[in-house]
Amino acid sequence: MDLWFGELHTDNVKLSIRVEQQVFHGESEFQHIDVFDSPEFGRFLTSDGSVIFSEKDEFTYDEMIVHVPMAVHPNVCRVLVLGGGDGGVARELSQYDEIEVIDVVEPDKLFVDVCCKYFPDNACGLRDSRVRIFYEDGLKFLRTKSDDYDLIINDCTDPLGHAAGLFTKEFYGSCFKALHEDGIMVYQHGSPFYDEDEETCRAMHKRAYRSFPISRVYQAHIPTCPAGYWLFGFASKKYHPLKDFNAARWNARHIKTWYYSTHLHRGAFMLPRYVEELLEEEENG
Amino acid sequence: MDLWFGELHTDNVKLSIRVEQQVFHGESEFQHIDVFDSPEFGRFLTSDGSVIFSEKDEFTYDEMIVHVPMAVHPNVCRVLVLGGGDGGVARELSQYDEIEVIDVVEPDKLFVDVCCKYFPDNACGLRDSRVRIFYEDGLKFLRTKSDDYDLIINDCTDPLGHAAGLFTKEFYGSCFKALHEDGIMVYQHGSPFYDEDEETCRAMHKRAYRSFPISRVYQAHIPTCPAGYWLFGFASKKYHPLKDFNAARWNARHIKTWYYSTHLHRGAFMLPRYVEELLEEEENG
Repeated sequence: MDLWFGELHTDNVKLSIRVEQQVFHGESEFQHIDVFDSPEFGRFLTSDGSVIFSEKDEFTYDEMIVHVPMAVHPNVCRVLVLGGGDGGVARELSQYDEIEVIDVVEPDKLFVDVCCKYFPDNACGLRDSRVRIFYEDGLKFLRTKSDDYDLIINDCTDPLGHAAGLFTKEFYGSCFKALHEDGIMVYQHGSPFYDEDEETCRAMHKRAYRSFPISRVYQAHIPTCPAGYWLFGFASKKYHPLKDFNAARWNARHIKTWYYSTHLHRGAFMLPRYVEELLEEEENG
Repeated sequence: MDLWFGELHTDNVKLSIRVEQQVFHGESEFQHIDVFDSPEFGRFLTSDGSVIFSEKDEFTYDEMIVHVPMAVHPNVCRVLVLGGGDGGVARELSQYDEIEVIDVVEPDKLFVDVCCKYFPDNACGLRDSRVRIFYEDGLKFLRTKSDDYDLIINDCTDPLGHAAGLFTKEFYGSCFKALHEDGIMVYQHGSPFYDEDEETCRAMHKRAYRSFPISRVYQAHIPTCPAGYWLFGFASKKYHPLKDFNAARWNARHIKTWYYSTHLHRGAFMLPRYVEELLEEEENG
């Protein structure tokens, strides 16, 4: 059998993954969800035809969105994860003993159920006793919170689709309000390479830069993302991602990683010139 | 018209690029060469069905293989480029006034002729008066050289194909001999993500590490490469790529770049943990 899953990264570029079998298809009020087994990326999940994560490369994303802020903030007790229904972010967070609460706000119960059934290595993170799952809209949840969290992780994947409310100006303001006075927010910043993604990337940085005293961008290489290149935003009230980064403290934890290291932490903030320039244009514009 | 160029990055992953038209097809004793126009990557060239470079992303590769060693070595006068028949590497080198000789050794005259005709923005580099083109086998050329160059750039693309002789143990020894006592060699190190590429990557590092006192690896994000991720090797007799890196001196040159910066230079050597570990295994194995 010659079966391929294909995803248009733009109208003019397509990544195709050979598939052994489709193991799930379902539809919620939010999205179509499909799960496939593949020889190259293992099992992977798609939402409305876009790869959300695969067994083979999810570690990069989950490690980079969790360990970067955790190696900067000196004492994270309360964490809010927006999206994150697959459990990968909660799994990485669960390695930190000082965390007391991990609130996961995922509007789509089907997404959680599918991940629990088909991706136990991610979903195990949701079984940690500190995790509370709220099947709610992230923005509505946020509006009720004030001075409540040390870290907010925006794990929503789709800035122009059903999660678009999580990338508005109001959203960044609500996050600011929901954080403690030394809180940090990290979020997916998209891929800056293709022209059609560049505008989203610019708009996100502009909003974060105007909402938080400190706003920096860092990068990772994720093969199933458009152009294989993904950015993350680090928006913070007090701590700088490099000046307040404590490598010795993080290394003393002996957390096993495949992508993140304290050496890589610094390098992840050293961006290609064309990315630096487009971010600076939004800062000055 | 719905016309796509597809390249299998492994047997199980394919990158497809929408094509407006094919503008060239030819065959030499070394390879099949095709040139296409595309809306996303502009004009691109393939060799035996693999993308060698595109107008949209060649800058990353050419800048990273040239400016990294040039920002480390304090006085490069004589440069040898193995492969490099498209002229992109020579174009970047031509911005350094202190360089006196740029020897380009490209076995395939058809490749040079096609690039001159279809990629003038790259091939302009070959018109610099310091460039000498030798239509010869790279390894045979190298064998005749001793204590002759400050910098060798191995711009050959295909470690398992017709350029395989340029990745053998003899090759690294010949480069060592051809370099001055403080010479540097940089080379393509492949993509470490997919299992089938990992072995090549390991073998290259093993050879370079055993042939040169200093051997480090650095990275770049190149969308048309397998998994969008590419490594370069930095093998050196005397200068360390970070300890002997002089950012102020390089910045004083005011060379316009799109990817490289002296900030990025440092970050490019900070690798994901799984890459660091596979390199260390070859160093200790």
